Amino acid sequence: MEINLFEKQVYTNRREVLKQRFGNDGILLFMGNEESSMNYKDNTFPFRQDSSFLYYFGLDVPALVATIDTETGEEVIYGNELTIDDIVWTGTLPTVSEMAGMVGISHTKPYNAVADYIQHAISKGLKVHILPPYRPENVIKLASWFGKNTAKVKSLVSEKLIRTVVGQRVIKSPLEVAELEKAVNISIDMELAVIKNAKPGVKCYELVSHAHQVAIANNARLGYPAIITTQGQTLHTHYYGHELKDGDMVLSDIGAENAMHYGGDLTRTFPAGKKFTAKQAELYNTVLNSMDHAISMLKPGVRYRDIHFAACEKLAEGLVSVGIMKGDPAEALAAGAHTMFFQCGLGHMLGMDTHDMEDLGEQFVGYTDELKKETSIFGLKSLRLGRELQAGFVLTVEPGIYIIPELIDRWQAENKYAGFIDYNVLNTYRDFGGIRIEDNFLITETGNQLLGKYLPKTLHEIEGLK
Amino acid sequence: MEINLFEKQVYTNRREVLKQRFGNDGILLFMGNEESSMNYKDNTFPFRQDSSFLYYFGLDVPALVATIDTETGEEVIYGNELTIDDIVWTGTLPTVSEMAGMVGISHTKPYNAVADYIQHAISKGLKVHILPPYRPENVIKLASWFGKNTAKVKSLVSEKLIRTVVGQRVIKSPLEVAELEKAVNISIDMELAVIKNAKPGVKCYELVSHAHQVAIANNARLGYPAIITTQGQTLHTHYYGHELKDGDMVLSDIGAENAMHYGGDLTRTFPAGKKFTAKQAELYNTVLNSMDHAISMLKPGVRYRDIHFAACEKLAEGLVSVGIMKGDPAEALAAGAHTMFFQCGLGHMLGMDTHDMEDLGEQFVGYTDELKKETSIFGLKSLRLGRELQAGFVLTVEPGIYIIPELIDRWQAENKYAGFIDYNVLNTYRDFGGIRIEDNFLITETGNQLLGKYLPKTLHEIEGLK
Repeated sequence: MEINLFEKQVYTNRREVLKQRFGNDGILLFMGNEESSMNYKDNTFPFRQDSSFLYYFGLDVPALVATIDTETGEEVIYGNELTIDDIVWTGTLPTVSEMAGMVGISHTKPYNAVADYIQHAISKGLKVHILPPYRPENVIKLASWFGKNTAKVKSLVSEKLIRTVVGQRVIKSPLEVAELEKAVNISIDMELAVIKNAKPGVKCYELVSHAHQVAIANNARLGYPAIITTQGQTLHTHYYGHELKDGDMVLSDIGAENAMHYGGDLTRTFPAGKKFTAKQAELYNTVLNSMDHAISMLKPGVRYRDIHFAACEKLAEGLVSVGIMKGDPAEALAAGAHTMFFQCGLGHMLGMDTHDMEDLGEQFVGYTDELKKETSIFGLKSLRLGRELQAGFVLTVEPGIYIIPELIDRWQAENKYAGFIDYNVLNTYRDFGGIRIEDNFLITETGNQLLGKYLPKTLHEIEGLK
Repeated sequence: MEINLFEKQVYTNRREVLKQRFGNDGILLFMGNEESSMNYKDNTFPFRQDSSFLYYFGLDVPALVATIDTETGEEVIYGNELTIDDIVWTGTLPTVSEMAGMVGISHTKPYNAVADYIQHAISKGLKVHILPPYRPENVIKLASWFGKNTAKVKSLVSEKLIRTVVGQRVIKSPLEVAELEKAVNISIDMELAVIKNAKPGVKCYELVSHAHQVAIANNARLGYPAIITTQGQTLHTHYYGHELKDGDMVLSDIGAENAMHYGGDLTRTFPAGKKFTAKQAELYNTVLNSMDHAISMLKPGVRYRDIHFAACEKLAEGLVSVGIMKGDPAEALAAGAHTMFFQCGLGHMLGMDTHDMEDLGEQFVGYTDELKKETSIFGLKSLRLGRELQAGFVLTVEPGIYIIPELIDRWQAENKYAGFIDYNVLNTYRDFGGIRIEDNFLITETGNQLLGKYLPKTLHEIEGLK
């Protein structure tokens, strides 16, 4: 069995930068992930290593922990060696010390030694810094190692470590951009397979099967559960039972995670049959227009929240021209009336995680101390990225129009935004569904660069694929 | 979104049988599963409900708990209703009370009410019976509800509940057998796709991609991680990086889990090119001969451990005739020398779980109080099923020959089984790999029945597929 790694120096350099920026301040503890059980302990989901662990330590192997002593610089990998029984079942692996050596670390200890190490550090008055755990087994282990109740583990999380890690991971190196391009290109081939196989009579799960086939045949996997649906208004539906009918639109939001665990995140919306209907085409072009406007604004120094608002205004303009909205688009935007149609955010950071570093907290990844994330305003609380763009950011742009009958009924009953929404017209669109178009971009010194090859996105290009 | 269910009466009847067999003895608590996070909380693996929860309550929906009061007969489903925010992201679902109604339960409460319910029951001196939790988030919740440390949750497990549940689930109803047949038939189509796409130059992950494609296109998924490898001697390898070369054998152990979560579990071993080599053909026929002999013994009243031994003896006979083993096969078997080549067990129970009910404990599922599972003898500690067969059992038969270089080196150094193993000959097979052939069977009143359609398994049939 091989372990996929960048060169040793990449990891050593990343840890050097981390230590330099963090300064002399106790111990940094990085939890690797374990296998996750499906329906009994030994039947596991595909292993997914923690992304920060991969970033600094590279080892895509379960049940490892790493520590960095910021005072002495000592780095240790904790893990257990395979027994002959393990080898019978899983084959040989390098030893823990061989693996550590591959990423430039010379000290290793058995897994259980980490508990003593933490207790010893705490007894010496050192702070032990951890990132927020999102796996319950890691919560249980941390609770035991720190001698706390599981409910108190949250209080151990180090904001300083979060800020330092985010500051480093948020700027993608050329090596990372190259991996992201690979993942996006596989994602594009997945989209093309889905679009080409879509026709009336096909079930959504058949389309999902082609996405997986292309991903796995490229030594990749899906980085997040596929959204392939005729009910595009449901933002994160994972129900694949619908059958495609002529006149339906299909929304396909899929992304490959490649062998190095970098991901793509693409969406296309296309007709189940050969052509969009006139009604669909109108709103499709509204979304595309909003997207192109947003892309034209992507460059360092611009706040992504402002790009989000600009894209929303373009959506409102299009909706006004169709007659679903009314009044002045800028005023509608200021009032929040566009959130009837676009309930979520324009995009998010992309990296090893589809929502990059979401485990570390959206406030730290997508916002700044000056620009706080809104946590209660509908339409902004799902905007994962608001901060000023910098060269090296990689992000998605994904505007959409989603006609959600439950939301129409609720807001119409409250007469909400009645000055900006024509509910009579809107109700003729109740079963319209949803449209999203999404690509991935690198922010460059001077502007932006589309990641991967070009995937058809205009109405005619899409129809040309069918 | 639909919820796949049997008829309401099926679940009601199952719970009636459970209550009747369990008697009046406190509260039964069944934990549904939650979503499992991959690399951040909201990015989840495909949801897999707990199998016992599915068996008694049917609801394939995350974050539910159920209780049965064995004294009053009251049954309650605990779960939270969707908010409008949830609906925007995931679409509508039936309410908790509608879902409960679908499976014949009329009482529902919010999720958090279960904690009070348990505390109240305990304060009244009632025993609260739970099954062994295998998901760490359920361990954390149980610890909190019972006011225990997570390390103590194990001590809360009710052997009585385990025995009652196993006693019921181990006998498959005709409805369940029909679902198992569906799953096996999808698994067969997966194997056929893998075999037909195997040729020199192809990477193992390309073959894996076809298995997934066929599973998903049939509204199923893989019930366990695919084993598709040219290194068949590694029993549970999930490394797919090898490229097929002419002369290689490929071992493909895959199974579909269908929409109702019943599974197939099949293995075929086939040449990467057009034909087996003479050396491969010889050992292939040894494994097939062992398998056919085992199948001929499958009927009620026979101990599966005896069938295991009979199959092992056939393997030893074949290995003696090839010259890898020597001496009397029956004596070699008694000494355990066959475990150099067949380190694991002949088969296991199959149902909603690939290793059915493994979460409840192999001793209870595969053994009896009279026939205890061996936990330390190499070659028997991995035999998951030993007990006398009964009509209604569904199980796998999967003999194999695995040539593991690490085991040869270790045992040869100890001169282990030197009277039965010709290490000189064996070392000429060091790079042979492994062979396994596996099918699924229902034990009937008079014998057994192969599940699903026939998947080619003789040497010539296999070569005929290439």
